Amino acid sequence: MLHDLPSLAQLLQRLQQVPYLASKNIYRVAEHFLHMDEREIEHFCALLLQAKSKLVRCDVCFCWREKDRSCSLCSSIKRDQRLVCVVETWQELLAIEKTGGYQGVYHVLGGVICPLDGVGPEDLTIKALIGRVVNKELKEVILAFNQTPEGEATAAYIASQLKPSGVLVSCLARGVPVGSSLESIDRVTVYKALCERRPF
Amino acid sequence: MLHDLPSLAQLLQRLQQVPYLASKNIYRVAEHFLHMDEREIEHFCALLLQAKSKLVRCDVCFCWREKDRSCSLCSSIKRDQRLVCVVETWQELLAIEKTGGYQGVYHVLGGVICPLDGVGPEDLTIKALIGRVVNKELKEVILAFNQTPEGEATAAYIASQLKPSGVLVSCLARGVPVGSSLESIDRVTVYKALCERRPF
Repeated sequence: MLHDLPSLAQLLQRLQQVPYLASKNIYRVAEHFLHMDEREIEHFCALLLQAKSKLVRCDVCFCWREKDRSCSLCSSIKRDQRLVCVVETWQELLAIEKTGGYQGVYHVLGGVICPLDGVGPEDLTIKALIGRVVNKELKEVILAFNQTPEGEATAAYIASQLKPSGVLVSCLARGVPVGSSLESIDRVTVYKALCERRPF
Repeated sequence: MLHDLPSLAQLLQRLQQVPYLASKNIYRVAEHFLHMDEREIEHFCALLLQAKSKLVRCDVCFCWREKDRSCSLCSSIKRDQRLVCVVETWQELLAIEKTGGYQGVYHVLGGVICPLDGVGPEDLTIKALIGRVVNKELKEVILAFNQTPEGEATAAYIASQLKPSGVLVSCLARGVPVGSSLESIDRVTVYKALCERRPF
């Protein structure tokens, strides 16, 4: 019956592209928006556009920052700027921040090396990471990847690239359950894995 | 760290109000939007506003219809207009349409009676349903509610209200697993439950 409702069909088709809106959920999400009044939808759209126009990637750690502010992580004097934790995406960064036990800075890679998906080292911020290690004389680089084959391969690649610099490269303790992602496990386990990091 | 990113915090706060975006998923959804270019976001917003402005509830069955078209269900000559299936929401209507085995029309109730949530009979389209039964001389009303306490209570209430009219009131066969919702079960089970409907 959706072909009789082109406005709805178009919206549903667009919602289907949003990750984590499985096919059955999009109907409820569409209903949610249809029950809002026009002013609320305009407010929602304004928030989306504001986020898009005001948020940029930090040039150093590649985490999101507000355009008119410096990166709160890279400019913090409370953080050890010579200790860098490398994460796949911003979501993993948030998972580590939530433990409350990490006082260094970050480097957001933008993904992992995955030849099947056409993602090579040049598509990630690996070059910038090597530049940071060399120029800033870092004391330690923690590779905090998900325990997936791609995560492990990326860690091995980065470790090999950083070897000439002599920096200490560590990775999370094997406390992270194999096959699961950082985002989905409890913060105590994330914290333990962070504390028990070992040389790569 | 979200307090350093007000644009992002505001967007996340708004996304949290959307059903089925559990707290961990909103970060991925936000990333999805931030990776779109401005033109794409504007297109998404245009689709939302278009859906909002073009879709209205049908005055008869309370399903969505395009403003400039008549309701495809209520105006269909292929459908038995004297057989009405009462559903909680539009999502359940879609679940029954997907079975491909129902040739009557619908009545979307807009929810179920739930005193704890402050939803009484007057908040639903029950009055309009009774009007339909009386004015259109319906031959059967099928109560296709989810097998929840609220669904059963609503069915009992409607059946008692329809008794004076003498219309045949039936409900879905008990094939629907108790505790689960119509949306989430396979279409064959929905179809069986529809075929094996019994007098209330």
